[in-house]
Amino acid sequence: MAASTMRFSPATYNGGSRGPQRVSPATALRLGSTQNAAVFSVTRTISSRARISSISQCSSSSSSSSVTSAAMINKASGKVIDGKSVAKQIQEKIATEISRMKESIGVVPGLAVILAGNREDSVAYVRNKKIACESVGINSKSYEVHLAEEVSEQEVLEHIKGFNDDPSVHGILVQLPLPPHMNQQNVLNAIQIEKDVDGFNPLNIGLLAMKDREPLFVPCTAKACIELLHRYDVPIKGKRVVVVGRSNIVGLPTALLLQREDATVSIVHSRTENPEEITREADVVIAAVGRPNMVKGSWIKPNAVVIDVGVTKVEDAKKRRGYRYDGDVCFEEVNKIASAITPVPRGVGPMTIAMLLSNTLVAAKRAHNFK
Amino acid sequence: MAASTMRFSPATYNGGSRGPQRVSPATALRLGSTQNAAVFSVTRTISSRARISSISQCSSSSSSSSVTSAAMINKASGKVIDGKSVAKQIQEKIATEISRMKESIGVVPGLAVILAGNREDSVAYVRNKKIACESVGINSKSYEVHLAEEVSEQEVLEHIKGFNDDPSVHGILVQLPLPPHMNQQNVLNAIQIEKDVDGFNPLNIGLLAMKDREPLFVPCTAKACIELLHRYDVPIKGKRVVVVGRSNIVGLPTALLLQREDATVSIVHSRTENPEEITREADVVIAAVGRPNMVKGSWIKPNAVVIDVGVTKVEDAKKRRGYRYDGDVCFEEVNKIASAITPVPRGVGPMTIAMLLSNTLVAAKRAHNFK
Repeated sequence: MAASTMRFSPATYNGGSRGPQRVSPATALRLGSTQNAAVFSVTRTISSRARISSISQCSSSSSSSSVTSAAMINKASGKVIDGKSVAKQIQEKIATEISRMKESIGVVPGLAVILAGNREDSVAYVRNKKIACESVGINSKSYEVHLAEEVSEQEVLEHIKGFNDDPSVHGILVQLPLPPHMNQQNVLNAIQIEKDVDGFNPLNIGLLAMKDREPLFVPCTAKACIELLHRYDVPIKGKRVVVVGRSNIVGLPTALLLQREDATVSIVHSRTENPEEITREADVVIAAVGRPNMVKGSWIKPNAVVIDVGVTKVEDAKKRRGYRYDGDVCFEEVNKIASAITPVPRGVGPMTIAMLLSNTLVAAKRAHNFK
Repeated sequence: MAASTMRFSPATYNGGSRGPQRVSPATALRLGSTQNAAVFSVTRTISSRARISSISQCSSSSSSSSVTSAAMINKASGKVIDGKSVAKQIQEKIATEISRMKESIGVVPGLAVILAGNREDSVAYVRNKKIACESVGINSKSYEVHLAEEVSEQEVLEHIKGFNDDPSVHGILVQLPLPPHMNQQNVLNAIQIEKDVDGFNPLNIGLLAMKDREPLFVPCTAKACIELLHRYDVPIKGKRVVVVGRSNIVGLPTALLLQREDATVSIVHSRTENPEEITREADVVIAAVGRPNMVKGSWIKPNAVVIDVGVTKVEDAKKRRGYRYDGDVCFEEVNKIASAITPVPRGVGPMTIAMLLSNTLVAAKRAHNFK
């Protein structure tokens, strides 16, 4: 996708969605050190109260600069980027496009979703995707596969093969994480690249990385982040952007997409020696680690824009349901310093689902050469 | 290639080589703004004296900081990284490995080189590669194809197909740039990925980019840079590295490889608003733009390490042959500030050829399952 065509139009932009991955607290404490740790959406309940206080509460780092401290004191709250509302607008346009396609050529986009096991979070994610598909007119219901936790890799591969061969299926999504006895790479590689609406195929990632090449699909969360920046007229070209986290499914593709948009991109990760200092240089910060409230006010340059991809379920006795969702960014602190920030929830999450719908529409249009 | 096995061993490391690409002076003046501009090796003669003085002479930028100015005055010259000598050691090891393979299984690695046209620089590069192949025992002579400038793309594709099908050919290299009537992507895509010793296939680039995935070959110049850093015990893990230039063949793969080595990587390019300031934050600078002497002393943090990938032929009446080769880095200035620096020539260039030989050996070993 050329930089010049990156702004949203239903025909060109891409999305995709991948559900949460569970990581051990020890793993999550390391900043994106494994593929699993650096996912955009980490759902886990932190059961130790000590851990809750050490991880999930917002408090300024002792090294916060006087500049940012002053900003924190003097500045009113930044603009909150309303991902849910933007996602709604996008879904409406997608629904219109799908109606037009159905009327013109009688084709309804089909999205197959394969879920193995009964993880509470995965089940919830799949349900949300299904609801979103229905709301825009994508047929997901006919291609829903819910398998037992102990299903063999071979059986999952056979389902994928069936969907690869089915011309009424335009997108295939395997809900991650897969049960531990399966080889995730094998399974994802089996998805035909033209139907890989998540865009995680290495060929697609290579095409995303290279100048003058075009990926088939832009991974959904990456596109969700950049689309929010565009919608809120945040300059990207030439600006310094720091992506915190380097997972294959969020940090890496987001950095590659930002590079295509002519940002000056730095990736901060678990081995970075001075993440706070580097992040504070950025005009735009994308936090995609899966460690709640890790990015404090002292990490942010005054008037920077902050996109928070993390979603972690954190125990909270004050809530009626007993938990809340926290992002990677300490919202209360950062909101006083940033010029704009996405909330959690209602920020990147709904946009990610909108991008999945969009990618499925793109796949269907491409398969039928429908403009 | 896992980070833990990145240090050189003849069995595991990769190289590749791609000759120079000619760019117009106007293009070269923009910092890596197109794929052609940001190649590692730009050969052109700057004929205007005015241009020579504005481009190719070293003079500190007016915005040089007092820190670097002080360092420039006080510091003795940094260590010069001897790429030629390291390349020689590597070639000796490769030659030993090739002898062992030949004795054990009777196989000699074969490298096919396809050259279309008679560009002086391309002809010279191909000649150098051929000499290097002969010196280590790689058979390149039997698979040399030199075609006329006006050859059809179809004919080039047929040669590639022939080499793809020939089991005695383990690596295929198409000398760039191709004549302008050919589609470079089509031609490069035709090379079987197992024989793409340059590693420019987008699938290979995706595998290089992704965590927990392994590329078949690491593009040669990227590997040449990192190998020099390893050989000189320059720390990479956690350190800030700035790659200046984002070409598909040098800047991008070098940044991706550094990221695999746990560096904190930033890419500076033609659209970057403050390249000097950002580059001055780096512990290691990789300059890969193809613009002679662009990186001044004021761009470099005291004691940083500087790898200069650029090679530009510049008119020089004082030289008997009438020209000299300049790098992207103003050597005289930067050498006073950096702790170590590669020269031009005798820096990255010879290492790049060594990596091509190494990649060809890797391809042959892999094809014959020889350890």
